[in-house]
Amino acid sequence: MERKIVVIGSGAAGMTAASTARRTDPKAEITIVTEDEHIAYSPCVIPWVLEGLTGWDDIIMHDPDYYRRERDIEVLTQTRVDSVDHEARLLRAGEREVPYDALVIATGGSVFIPPVPGKDLENVFVVRTINDGKAIQAAMAATEKVAVIGAGVIGLELALSLRRSGKEVTVVEMVNQVVPRILDQDMAAPLQDYLEGEGVRFLLGAPIEAVLGKKKVEAVQAGGEEIPCEMAIFATGVRANLEIPKELGLDIGSLGGVSVSASMQPYSRGRPVPDIYLAGDLVQCQSAVAPGPSMSQLGSSAVRQGLVAGTNAAGGNAAHSPVASPWVSVIGDLQVAGTGLSASLASWYGLNAVCGIAHGHSRARYYPGGSPYTVKVLVDSASRLILGAQMISGEDVTGRINWLTAAITERVSVDDFVCRFENAYCPPTSMVRDVALAAADDALRKLGE
Amino acid sequence: MERKIVVIGSGAAGMTAASTARRTDPKAEITIVTEDEHIAYSPCVIPWVLEGLTGWDDIIMHDPDYYRRERDIEVLTQTRVDSVDHEARLLRAGEREVPYDALVIATGGSVFIPPVPGKDLENVFVVRTINDGKAIQAAMAATEKVAVIGAGVIGLELALSLRRSGKEVTVVEMVNQVVPRILDQDMAAPLQDYLEGEGVRFLLGAPIEAVLGKKKVEAVQAGGEEIPCEMAIFATGVRANLEIPKELGLDIGSLGGVSVSASMQPYSRGRPVPDIYLAGDLVQCQSAVAPGPSMSQLGSSAVRQGLVAGTNAAGGNAAHSPVASPWVSVIGDLQVAGTGLSASLASWYGLNAVCGIAHGHSRARYYPGGSPYTVKVLVDSASRLILGAQMISGEDVTGRINWLTAAITERVSVDDFVCRFENAYCPPTSMVRDVALAAADDALRKLGE
Repeated sequence: MERKIVVIGSGAAGMTAASTARRTDPKAEITIVTEDEHIAYSPCVIPWVLEGLTGWDDIIMHDPDYYRRERDIEVLTQTRVDSVDHEARLLRAGEREVPYDALVIATGGSVFIPPVPGKDLENVFVVRTINDGKAIQAAMAATEKVAVIGAGVIGLELALSLRRSGKEVTVVEMVNQVVPRILDQDMAAPLQDYLEGEGVRFLLGAPIEAVLGKKKVEAVQAGGEEIPCEMAIFATGVRANLEIPKELGLDIGSLGGVSVSASMQPYSRGRPVPDIYLAGDLVQCQSAVAPGPSMSQLGSSAVRQGLVAGTNAAGGNAAHSPVASPWVSVIGDLQVAGTGLSASLASWYGLNAVCGIAHGHSRARYYPGGSPYTVKVLVDSASRLILGAQMISGEDVTGRINWLTAAITERVSVDDFVCRFENAYCPPTSMVRDVALAAADDALRKLGE
Repeated sequence: MERKIVVIGSGAAGMTAASTARRTDPKAEITIVTEDEHIAYSPCVIPWVLEGLTGWDDIIMHDPDYYRRERDIEVLTQTRVDSVDHEARLLRAGEREVPYDALVIATGGSVFIPPVPGKDLENVFVVRTINDGKAIQAAMAATEKVAVIGAGVIGLELALSLRRSGKEVTVVEMVNQVVPRILDQDMAAPLQDYLEGEGVRFLLGAPIEAVLGKKKVEAVQAGGEEIPCEMAIFATGVRANLEIPKELGLDIGSLGGVSVSASMQPYSRGRPVPDIYLAGDLVQCQSAVAPGPSMSQLGSSAVRQGLVAGTNAAGGNAAHSPVASPWVSVIGDLQVAGTGLSASLASWYGLNAVCGIAHGHSRARYYPGGSPYTVKVLVDSASRLILGAQMISGEDVTGRINWLTAAITERVSVDDFVCRFENAYCPPTSMVRDVALAAADDALRKLGE
């Protein structure tokens, strides 16, 4: 009898888990069950589709037929799981009963919309699936003014995309800075300045109070102000989809995700649950830097977790490492990136972070076409370990934030970072000494005081 | 009495050592003695100046007055050191006697021109200083055909710059591939293809035999062929300037550089020499990956070494770490980078390197404007440690090669690299899983066979 593997969810985590299970066990029967209509696309790209840089059909890498044909993976789209009987190793979806030996739960998360009056009016949107994106696109023609609720990276990418599509855009944010929680205020300020220069308006420190209108959105009310708009898009963060985990009695962690072991297995009343694996936005795993758990909720993290869950579901043996969760966002001409802890998160964990900062260029200063490049490095004053880093520049931050991430996950002190970490140099792509090293120097000076 | 520090040489190593000594000891008397006319510039940028992308005055960051005024550092330009009496801690340069407590030798290297007939003809050039670059520039107007001897990265950058300036360019190389020694043949081939597409001709596997002409260059002869040209530029590698080290009886290492300790101090007959520090292209230091010494001869390495030499010369306490020597070169629309050992170097050291390779994109596949991105990862079959990496793409390789370099210097196995190294993701700047991780997967598969 071949092993039967069922994956619930068709995001990056679920698709990776299924494909990895296939590589691990060429004979297994693998089935993906998903509520979505489209699979194998990156929701991160939706803002750029709305701007017209690419199309809906282009961003879908493969359809269910491809998976059936090329990977012998059955994909049941638009199929809702009604119940999971883990005792019987049986999943029910409508009429259909799907038996399994191993189950991967990759049901992701949903945008959390605060329970404000008017949140169910027409033209209130979220950005999570292609169908969400298409709904926004369909409503755009008749829209002049948009309110984006939430100034996280998705909110900002979306705000600029809508602005560049000719809309009047106001971003409403509860906290008094953009990209709260993961970006420090001093690094967030130039990003806000840039977006204001592009014509995006901000209302910060203003919790959303209501969406106003009769049938359709006519305004949003936040921080006592009323902002007229014909469309309100909530980019207010993602909460784990816990319906199935709760039905199965899986332990939910302190951050609201399902707690997992290094094998990506959940617990129930503290005991590991056999034959179930999790991956993606609903998972709470170990932080590489904070003394506690972490929810990455990033596409790249979903893939890493899917690799581990898929391997283990197919009878292999893989372990998931603690995460620093590097991220990067492209907002017009700016690239912003972060990894590990921000100052506010470090402080939340009771760590005393010393911040080194340096301003330089993305290329040699005299080489044409470069842009300013600012790096902030956060160091734990007790252990001198690097806790986090943030960068802003016009180009080339992705590889550099990966580089800093290695310093975090390999538990490198700021002293060793300056001593051991080398950077490549060529005038059109870098300064002779990378600005990140200068930021670490600055942290060392402050630690020495 | 203030400490007297003398630095010989005004390249990246010498200037960094002097500035670092000033930060370490605000009161020291610091003097730089250099044969050069210009200081504080990057010779790496010369190809782009010749192409007209920037000017000679623009690439000089500071003049001697700046150092005198801002950093209280005396700079004696166009001054040749005649002798060093280390017993007496005294340096002689013409009429001038300069006493010192600590000496930093950063005399760099010179282009090695093979002893072929005609090498002293007019219009035979090297690319090392601004004055070398100006001499080439002056001769360019009357030049239609150029032969570049040596297909290393400097030779190729130069070849394309001259090609784009309208010259007929032939690159002559002894080895039968471009960028020999540091780039593997499979990664070098696309680079050669690209340059041929730009109109650069190659004569590979052809050692230079003679420069022909009466007074001026009329042709070069290599591999039995005669290539007509009015200009021959040697980019045949850099050899350490050993005049002063030899006079001082310092030990020369097996690679032809001066052997140094982690404090950047030289040895004499195996014993450390007090009060002398070295930095830059003449130094042979410890490799982070090979069981033996390494000569980086990179601007970024010169800076790292200058930081250590300058700190210690001023009475501080710094250590230089073993090097992986990451490099990056921009050749037209391509960016090529490497770190650690190439396959040929690994084999030279008796290591069995398993090579993983992966082909992907610099951005999400569906995002417009990206380019192919190929990564090769070399793994030691015995220890499974990452020995080296090479990359070629149209953008963003610099930070990524730094990232792979961290895996080498932190001595990460390919298993741990795949498990622990995270990458940031955003559709305009990366695939959801970096191609370097896919290359490591490929190496793992091959190791498992």
